[in-house]
Parts: sequence; structure tokens; C-alpha cells
Amino acid sequence: MARILSTVKLKAGMMEELKGKFGHHHFKYVHRKEVTDKDRNEADIFVTYGGDISQSDVKDFKNLKWLMVMSAGVDDLPLQELKDVQITNATGIHRIQMTEYTLGLILNHYKNFTQLKKDQEKHEWRKNAKTEEIYNKEVHILGTGSIGSRLAEVLNIFGLKTVGYNTDGRSIPPFHKNYAIDDLIKHIKSADILINILPSTQATRNLLTVNHFKHMKDDGIFINIGRGDVISDEVILETLKEEYISHMILDVFNEEPLPGDHPFYQLNNITITPHASSKTDQYLERAFQIFIDNLDAYDHNKDMINQVEHQKGY
Amino acid sequence: MARILSTVKLKAGMMEELKGKFGHHHFKYVHRKEVTDKDRNEADIFVTYGGDISQSDVKDFKNLKWLMVMSAGVDDLPLQELKDVQITNATGIHRIQMTEYTLGLILNHYKNFTQLKKDQEKHEWRKNAKTEEIYNKEVHILGTGSIGSRLAEVLNIFGLKTVGYNTDGRSIPPFHKNYAIDDLIKHIKSADILINILPSTQATRNLLTVNHFKHMKDDGIFINIGRGDVISDEVILETLKEEYISHMILDVFNEEPLPGDHPFYQLNNITITPHASSKTDQYLERAFQIFIDNLDAYDHNKDMINQVEHQKGY
Repeated sequence: MARILSTVKLKAGMMEELKGKFGHHHFKYVHRKEVTDKDRNEADIFVTYGGDISQSDVKDFKNLKWLMVMSAGVDDLPLQELKDVQITNATGIHRIQMTEYTLGLILNHYKNFTQLKKDQEKHEWRKNAKTEEIYNKEVHILGTGSIGSRLAEVLNIFGLKTVGYNTDGRSIPPFHKNYAIDDLIKHIKSADILINILPSTQATRNLLTVNHFKHMKDDGIFINIGRGDVISDEVILETLKEEYISHMILDVFNEEPLPGDHPFYQLNNITITPHASSKTDQYLERAFQIFIDNLDAYDHNKDMINQVEHQKGY
Repeated sequence: MARILSTVKLKAGMMEELKGKFGHHHFKYVHRKEVTDKDRNEADIFVTYGGDISQSDVKDFKNLKWLMVMSAGVDDLPLQELKDVQITNATGIHRIQMTEYTLGLILNHYKNFTQLKKDQEKHEWRKNAKTEEIYNKEVHILGTGSIGSRLAEVLNIFGLKTVGYNTDGRSIPPFHKNYAIDDLIKHIKSADILINILPSTQATRNLLTVNHFKHMKDDGIFINIGRGDVISDEVILETLKEEYISHMILDVFNEEPLPGDHPFYQLNNITITPHASSKTDQYLERAFQIFIDNLDAYDHNKDMINQVEHQKGY
């Protein structure tokens, strides 16, 4: 019997499935703000969206063997302090909605839907509405994991050329070309679209500089659906004010929620969305499925899926 | 030697290609409003976007053998009067941009980008922005030709179920299922998205009735990128006022441009775009390629591609 503490509220159907298949374990849901030291002391397994374990909390988790993070990013966890705990995350459940969201953003930009909606509101029929094809464009994607690969697969179907960047430049099937992240500056000049999907690690923080965007095409666009800290606010402001590229579409930021008085809101060549690319009404179902699969692995001493490497940070 | 009259202005590069390969023919460009009876009398071949041949003009085209229409729709041509003239169109050059445009519209709807843009303008961060997946939705497409098939192929990649309708319900590979158009009412209830791409013919005019939409899901949407006359304005108004479905996205209308005082502009569950789905900066290049291929077939008495059947009307 393991004691499972969860700050993730499961749906009724999930609780039934849990009781049916895993009735030998003890499951306890506690609101994230009401977790006591005793709860932490007793837990063998902790299920969380992340963000509710501080460095000082770790010592209270005396029995913790496994931490199931029901999201993809673990950059807000005290990984060093948790080095003896198995950590798994929900990587892989984001690829469907994030690919849809990103392709939607790309098409929204090139088809000029925002302008067409404004025209509609003014009862105007713009005969020469500017619309551009994505066919034949070149997209460079930072990150070739589950989401990046799925995105490349879909963009290939639309006739785009896909270039993927990872740590060592190893070849990943759906991409037409792969390079090492360190070589981005050498290859960026042919990109129409640059997309960041990298996790937040020491190696990726402030990775993108003004110099990168100076090397891009004037009509290039940048999309960030990874982590906000891959680029500083100063780099974004300078790049967009100097118009080194034509547009940025940002779903993630160094500070979230983005404060209402943030200078980004004064720019007209930016699209701001509220960290929504990974949202879906299917989210909990898909994350729960990973938890269930791993709980079964836990019971049978098998390898879990989606293991986080403490050193790498993802 | 054939005399080619064109009301389509070709680009310099195209004129060079034409002179290089087809220098034995005589090519004359005339603005569509300045075509004389003499021009019509002399023309063996007429290249047009359509819309500049009236019923009474036909008798002036005494020598006309081939009419190349640089668009897809031929519903504004006096087909009966032109029954002895070979007509070809530019069908097939629309599938890339129309598929991009349609997928963009679908994602724009389900990802709620219009609302997110309004939030941005108000410096608002909507934490619980509503966004829905297209994955697993069911789309019914009226028309299984070049565009419909391409669209189905792409939607399949996104995990949608695709159902295609044509005259006799014959099976077309990319679709999961095919039915006859006449049976639409029997199958429409499982559709999340209904898309019309049918050409305008006697059989398709006013095809869609209020009853069709009553049979659809409450949260269903309808997209028209085919021809406006597949549905009357009255059917649209009643369906949307009574909210039989949740939204219509219309790119084509019975009257174009849509007049500024049209009642559609008063509805809030409608998206109006200005017949832009087939627009592309690559349009003329792709249509010209069909013209060139067919001019070569003309010279060598071979079968042309994209022949229009006068009876069918497409």
C-alpha cells in the first residue's frame, strides 16, 4: 500500500478507475493551499501540477518515492533537493493542442484574419485583402522533442521546409534538416518563421539575442510557445522597435500574467496570448492516463514513462 | 498561327516564356473594358478571369475555338451559347491556399483568437481563455474534388474524421466516408463542422435549408468557401438568429461585395471574409502554367487538362 497525496483534483470517472484498479493504495486529495506537514510526511507518491513544492518543503516529504508532475515543465521544482525522488511529467500530452494552436497562430498571421475581423466590424469589404501562403516557407524549430516533431510533421504536409534544432544536431525524422542549437546563428538567415519550444534550463535561458533577429529576414516572424525566459524583455523590445523582423507571437513571458502596464502592449507588431497553447479540455484525461500507466509500473517495479532527468532539467 | 486575345495581364516573365515557346502565335492583351468587336472577331483563343463575356458578346467571337478561364468558377459564363467552344479553367490551383485558409478559419474559431486579440488590446490576460481542440471532431465536406480532397487529407493528419459528399456518393480515398449529396440530411447530425466547396450549378443552388441546420449539433459550425448561392440569405439569417448552430464562417455570398448595410453585419455568430480563400500571390503563376500546358496541347491536338463540361457547368 502506498499513500498517494494529490493537489490535482481528479474527476469522478478517474476516481472510479483509480479505486477499481488501484484500490490497494490510499488516495488523498488536498487543495494545494491546505497541504499540511503531516500530509507531506506520509506521502509515498505526490501528484501535482508543479509549483507547490518549495525548497524548504522537500525535507517534509520524508517518504516520497515518486513525484508525478501533471504538466510538462519542471523548471519551478527544486530538482537538486529532489535528487533521490523519481520524477515523471506529462510530456507528450501537449503535442496535439500545441500543434493546433501554433498552426492556428501561423495561419492567423499570414491570412490576416485579425484585419479581416476589424473590417467586418466596420462593415467593410476589403477587395484586395492581403493574404500570404505558408506553402514553401521555411520554419526553424528550437526543440525536436514530442511537440517539435509533431509540429514538423504537420508543417511538412503544408509544404513548408522544416529545420529542427537540438543540443547536438542529431537527425530527427520528420525534419528536413537538423542542426545544433549552438549553430542557430549560422542558419537563421533562411528562416521565415522561428519557433521556440525549448524547456527552461540553464542552457536555454536568454539563448536568443538581438543578433539572432538581425540575421533573420525582415519579414520573418518569431513564435514562442516554450518558456518565456529563452529571451529577455529587452531583446524583444529592441528587436520589435527596430523592426529587425516583422512580428512576434508570444504565448509565454518572463512574467506571467503579463502586467497590464507592460511595454509589450504598446507595440503593434506583437501578438500576445495568455499561455494558452497547451490548454485543452482533454488535458487532465491525458495526464491522468500517464499517471495510471506509471502507477501500474510502480506496482510492478517496471520502468516508468516520461522520467525527468534531474541534471538535464527535463 | 492562332490569335490569342487576353484580358488577363501577364507578368513580364510570362510574356517572355510565351514568346520563347509560342512565338508562332499572336498574343494581344486588352483591358477588359476596352475589348472591341474587332478583337472578338479575330480571336481564336480568349484568356480571361471570366465575367467579361455576356450572352450577346458570344456571336462576336466568330472564330473562337478555346476559352481559357483563369479561375475555377464558370457559373458567370453563357455556357449554352458557348457550346461549340472548348472551355478550360484553372481548377486545381486553388487547393493549396484554400486548404490553408479553411484550416486557418477553423483553428481561429476553436482557439478563440479573435477574443484573445481583443484581450490584448485591453491589456487583459484571460487566464481561463476558452480553447477547444479540433482533434477527434467530425467534418462533413460538400464537394470531393481537388480542394475537398486536399482539405480532407490535411484534416486527417489533425485527427479529424472526414466525410465527403458528391453527386453519387462514390468513394474518394482521403475521406473516411463518402455519401451522396442528396443524403446529407440523413448524416448531418454527427457533423461538428460542415464545409461547402461545391461549384454553382442548377443542382447546388439553394441546396442548404434551415432543416439541414436544425439537424446539426447545437455547437456545430458552417463554413462556405464554395459559392454564395448554395444557401439563401434567409436561411442564413433564420439559422443564426434561432441559433440552430453556433457559428457560420462565410467567404462567399449571394451578393458580392456584401453591401455595408446587409443584415449579416448585425449578427454576432457570423464571420465574414471578402471572398479571399482562393487569393494568393502565386495565383497567376499557377493559372499561367495551366494555360501554357494547354496551349501546348492545342498546338499538338492533344487533350487539354481542366476541360469544363458545358452540361455539368464545371
